[in-house]
Amino acid sequence: MEIPQVLIVMGSDSDITVMEEAAKVLGQFGVPWEMRISSAHRCPDRTAALSAESEGQGIRVIIAGAGVAAHLAGVMAAGTILPVIGVPIGGGALNGVDALYSTVQMPGGIPVATVAIGKAGARNAGILAVQMLALSDSTLKGKLRAYKESMATEVEEKDKALQEKMGGS
Amino acid sequence: MEIPQVLIVMGSDSDITVMEEAAKVLGQFGVPWEMRISSAHRCPDRTAALSAESEGQGIRVIIAGAGVAAHLAGVMAAGTILPVIGVPIGGGALNGVDALYSTVQMPGGIPVATVAIGKAGARNAGILAVQMLALSDSTLKGKLRAYKESMATEVEEKDKALQEKMGGS
Amino acid sequence: MEIPQVLIVMGSDSDITVMEEAAKVLGQFGVPWEMRISSAHRCPDRTAALSAESEGQGIRVIIAGAGVAAHLAGVMAAGTILPVIGVPIGGGALNGVDALYSTVQMPGGIPVATVAIGKAGARNAGILAVQMLALSDSTLKGKLRAYKESMATEVEEKDKALQEKMGGS
Amino acid sequence: MEIPQVLIVMGSDSDITVMEEAAKVLGQFGVPWEMRISSAHRCPDRTAALSAESEGQGIRVIIAGAGVAAHLAGVMAAGTILPVIGVPIGGGALNGVDALYSTVQMPGGIPVATVAIGKAGARNAGILAVQMLALSDSTLKGKLRAYKESMATEVEEKDKALQEKMGGS
Amino acid sequence: MEIPQVLIVMGSDSDITVMEEAAKVLGQFGVPWEMRISSAHRCPDRTAALSAESEGQGIRVIIAGAGVAAHLAGVMAAGTILPVIGVPIGGGALNGVDALYSTVQMPGGIPVATVAIGKAGARNAGILAVQMLALSDSTLKGKLRAYKESMATEVEEKDKALQEKMGGS
Amino acid sequence: MEIPQVLIVMGSDSDITVMEEAAKVLGQFGVPWEMRISSAHRCPDRTAALSAESEGQGIRVIIAGAGVAAHLAGVMAAGTILPVIGVPIGGGALNGVDALYSTVQMPGGIPVATVAIGKAGARNAGILAVQMLALSDSTLKGKLRAYKESMATEVEEKDKALQEKMGGS
Amino acid sequence: MEIPQVLIVMGSDSDITVMEEAAKVLGQFGVPWEMRISSAHRCPDRTAALSAESEGQGIRVIIAGAGVAAHLAGVMAAGTILPVIGVPIGGGALNGVDALYSTVQMPGGIPVATVAIGKAGARNAGILAVQMLALSDSTLKGKLRAYKESMATEVEEKDKALQEKMGGS
Amino acid sequence: MEIPQVLIVMGSDSDITVMEEAAKVLGQFGVPWEMRISSAHRCPDRTAALSAESEGQGIRVIIAGAGVAAHLAGVMAAGTILPVIGVPIGGGALNGVDALYSTVQMPGGIPVATVAIGKAGARNAGILAVQMLALSDSTLKGKLRAYKESMATEVEEKDKALQEKMGGS
Repeated sequence: MEIPQVLIVMGSDSDITVMEEAAKVLGQFGVPWEMRISSAHRCPDRTAALSAESEGQGIRVIIAGAGVAAHLAGVMAAGTILPVIGVPIGGGALNGVDALYSTVQMPGGIPVATVAIGKAGARNAGILAVQMLALSDSTLKGKLRAYKESMATEVEEKDKALQEKMGGS
Repeated sequence: MEIPQVLIVMGSDSDITVMEEAAKVLGQFGVPWEMRISSAHRCPDRTAALSAESEGQGIRVIIAGAGVAAHLAGVMAAGTILPVIGVPIGGGALNGVDALYSTVQMPGGIPVATVAIGKAGARNAGILAVQMLALSDSTLKGKLRAYKESMATEVEEKDKALQEKMGGS
Repeated sequence: MEIPQVLIVMGSDSDITVMEEAAKVLGQFGVPWEMRISSAHRCPDRTAALSAESEGQGIRVIIAGAGVAAHLAGVMAAGTILPVIGVPIGGGALNGVDALYSTVQMPGGIPVATVAIGKAGARNAGILAVQMLALSDSTLKGKLRAYKESMATEVEEKDKALQEKMGGS
Repeated sequence: MEIPQVLIVMGSDSDITVMEEAAKVLGQFGVPWEMRISSAHRCPDRTAALSAESEGQGIRVIIAGAGVAAHLAGVMAAGTILPVIGVPIGGGALNGVDALYSTVQMPGGIPVATVAIGKAGARNAGILAVQMLALSDSTLKGKLRAYKESMATEVEEKDKALQEKMGGS
Repeated sequence: MEIPQVLIVMGSDSDITVMEEAAKVLGQFGVPWEMRISSAHRCPDRTAALSAESEGQGIRVIIAGAGVAAHLAGVMAAGTILPVIGVPIGGGALNGVDALYSTVQMPGGIPVATVAIGKAGARNAGILAVQMLALSDSTLKGKLRAYKESMATEVEEKDKALQEKMGGS
Repeated sequence: MEIPQVLIVMGSDSDITVMEEAAKVLGQFGVPWEMRISSAHRCPDRTAALSAESEGQGIRVIIAGAGVAAHLAGVMAAGTILPVIGVPIGGGALNGVDALYSTVQMPGGIPVATVAIGKAGARNAGILAVQMLALSDSTLKGKLRAYKESMATEVEEKDKALQEKMGGS
Repeated sequence: MEIPQVLIVMGSDSDITVMEEAAKVLGQFGVPWEMRISSAHRCPDRTAALSAESEGQGIRVIIAGAGVAAHLAGVMAAGTILPVIGVPIGGGALNGVDALYSTVQMPGGIPVATVAIGKAGARNAGILAVQMLALSDSTLKGKLRAYKESMATEVEEKDKALQEKMGGS
Repeated sequence: MEIPQVLIVMGSDSDITVMEEAAKVLGQFGVPWEMRISSAHRCPDRTAALSAESEGQGIRVIIAGAGVAAHLAGVMAAGTILPVIGVPIGGGALNGVDALYSTVQMPGGIPVATVAIGKAGARNAGILAVQMLALSDSTLKGKLRAYKESMATEVEEKDKALQEKMGGS
């Protein structure tokens, strides 16, 4: 097992189904990751330690996902100079708008790189982490280019499939 | 100077004009208070210490005010068993809705007693703190009863003034 | 049966499944409670009496839950000097945003200690009531400390379980 | 001075500039009115009495205006069988959305006839009260028809004025 | 069959399940009603005629329910001096917020007495119509008083049932 | 097969069930159409080409549907002088409000003719396209008049059906 | 004076400063226009006539602007087969969100081509009208191409100006 | 002049006052930057080229700021594998909520690292870019640590200043 480069942390085990989307993407790109549960409110010391120690353990990017008053990404960002990506998680009464505002509206000085609410956001958090790592890794750069091309090809194929079925009157 | 019973903490010195409303109310009720600036994100260790040490220093209730992704009240609540009152502060692009959601939508286990956005909320935070302290202080109970009566009387007087000016056609 | 220290009141029997979360928490902490149905609009006199008489009957904290134009917590707060905790209940067309705004945006002078929408909020209302009572009850203080530790431990265990299953690539 | 047929009540004297729009309309239609300040939260007994006694004093329609967690119209409606018109008043952090939701989202059994936020709403509250009174008053019916015609004429005149200045290329 | 005093109009037959709540209430109070489908946009002339002719046919109050860009109540109000009650109907992507804003935010001169979104609103529209008719009908006044008492009794009974089952610890 | 006059483009094959509503309407009016999948983000060059080449291929109106940060209609509008109709598609955490704002709030210079969120919007996009084409096609004008009449008739029939079942008390 | 091809209609003379942006654009493209004030609610018959007669008078596109419960565009669309462009106008308590929802969320069958809130929207309404007219007018097509190029050039010039002043560190 | 490592791009010259906050931060950290104006809609080809060519010109991180239907960051992200940071800019009718949703709710595959609305967001975009560059630059890492400490110190000093003036009763 390689030293993880990306730490994926979430506030509760109910967030796993969302956050594993980030892990899947990292796996596809061959980036080693570690997944942890920690809560900004239920175990603040542990969360502070997780953030403070991450750089020393070789982590280079942190992905944090949380719902409702989603403070986890902000709290992780407070304790490290590593870039922190925040994934707002929906599902509660406010459908994730609370999590989005709590994650993105960070005060000047402590950025959280916020992505979309839910699974699409978690997937994009994975890609964004890869983009950051690729800044000093030309193999990853190549994989990102291939990924971009494969997305374009996939749309092209879906378009062709549609054309054959019902492309016009 | 008496030992402060209420700790009023805010994220930035730009929040003073709002949060001093809480201090004014406490002063009216003769409850000693302490006012501090600390940031959940810019000085997380200091904020954690402020929360953890408050009970030992004689603090009995914490009032925390913050704007935008307002994590301060939640972070204070994470570190103590004292009741924490949260004041969402407006003024940014989202007018305090972000601060409200970030303060009130706390996950199960870590309550923040949230009041209204801005100055009226800060004033009510002061009264709520007094109500909590009055649970074991019959002098404060008496003052709260007198306060309630004075509010009713004030409305009555405003009503009379209106009647004299333009109470009817 | 002991004299109840916390009055849990709700606007309708359809709110029981939410509000019993508060009762469960109080039960865990050994705080005697009473649960009542009363409506700010359908039986205003009864609600006013419930509020006015609560202090005399030994109640020390009131928890009020209501949905839509949720006036119950505010009306209870108008009639007593006891601290009133408001639980906004969702489920209608506006998913509880209406109940949240109606509960939290109280005018200066009459605070309602508002918690999150729905079940997590009801649970936190219970804890907040215990925190208030613990201000003059060192046994409760000890229980709150134990509760806080058990939450941290629970997260730690979930984290370990995750590590064993899928903690990294 | 005639016995007032419409009671205009508001939560605070800061609401007078909005609510006098209702009085102006009633004056134009020759409907006697009474204007009062009372607060659902600061003087609940007085407000309950105001509502309960209104019918006996000859009041036939109640117009209630309030801001933020605007409970006044709902509390007035709880205490009477008279129709109650609610005017949500803006100005706070949430621009009146809180007042709108608190006024209009009444539970089944206790309607509040809600109009628009602010001055246009207050004016319409006056007209709506006249429409209700006109149900059994053919003079008022005639005045309402004349009013409707005068509105149409006024638009027509503004249209003509525009045509003369810049009606086309 | 008596001459209907209340016209219940809705934009589409999919609105019947909501709007029949208004009819049920009117039936309980013995107020004859008529239910119609007409659309502000699909048959504007018919809707204009329905509004213009309603007063002449003995209608005294109009209840209009519509969803999305809910113009029906406003269009009905434009064509008559009768009071028009608007019921915003949810169900679409915006859950009825669009219908609420389209119904309640009427410009000065043309009020729509707006009630809550959906079935509770439709029921309240029925009661509000009865309240208006009761202004000149003492039998209806008596029925409204009895209705108010029965609501209070119903809450009292639910409260008793709760007490027996789980009224306290 | 005739040369398509309307290009229906969508960001993903999951949008087909919504966007085929537009195609159905065009089919009813005998307007030939072409349906394509292209993504503003996954294949930007292809989307730019689709927009730039559309006019030359005989396309006269473009209908673009997309969800979440719905940039597709804006990107299509950037590349052509043809009128572009935007259909916001719901379904995500924000129920289409994000798609609505991303589609309608275009900066000055590049309009997108935005219709309602979801299927009703897609249907209306089809009608709007026909209205544009009818500006220079009197056959289509006749069909639009017939369509308008049939809508009015359909409402009339539904109204009759309601009258027979439950038109009044 | 030529026969106007575009009818610009607004609900009130306070909307002129917004809606004249549409007229300016039409003037730049040499498209004759007519500007009218009419209200969906204050003069419904006149508005219905304006819509019904527009096609016969040579109008080819209608632009309708209104605020709050903005029914004007929908009412115009109900009475004609011409394409109707809706401009939501802000300024009230809800900043134009009410006008946006009331304009864009039209039910199936009656589209309104909605543009952005306020002046940018009015300008885009003008361009959209030109795009529709250009479908059968190659001179307008040429002007639209030139306009698109001039926008690109204008951005390029602003970019150059920025580069000279502060294009980099 | 060094080769710029960060490209700051904005949709309009009215965005400069916001976006220069990002440049200031980069300047403080000694990171060379380039500032450009380009529009996703007014000059799509130029924007596509700017994105596609950025990597080849040595750019390592892109910061894109735009308002209303803010597509610029998404369009930049579509054309490159570099990480793109999006700054939603407020000021319009919807106060930047439209820009926030348009920037953050990107579909799976094309992330935009979104920061807060307005100036605080632009500042954080600068810091986030530095954090990304610091992944392979230990000098920048040191500067980030110093920056974090200076923020903590600054709060501490503000706290002391407050203590001296009004730290308690």
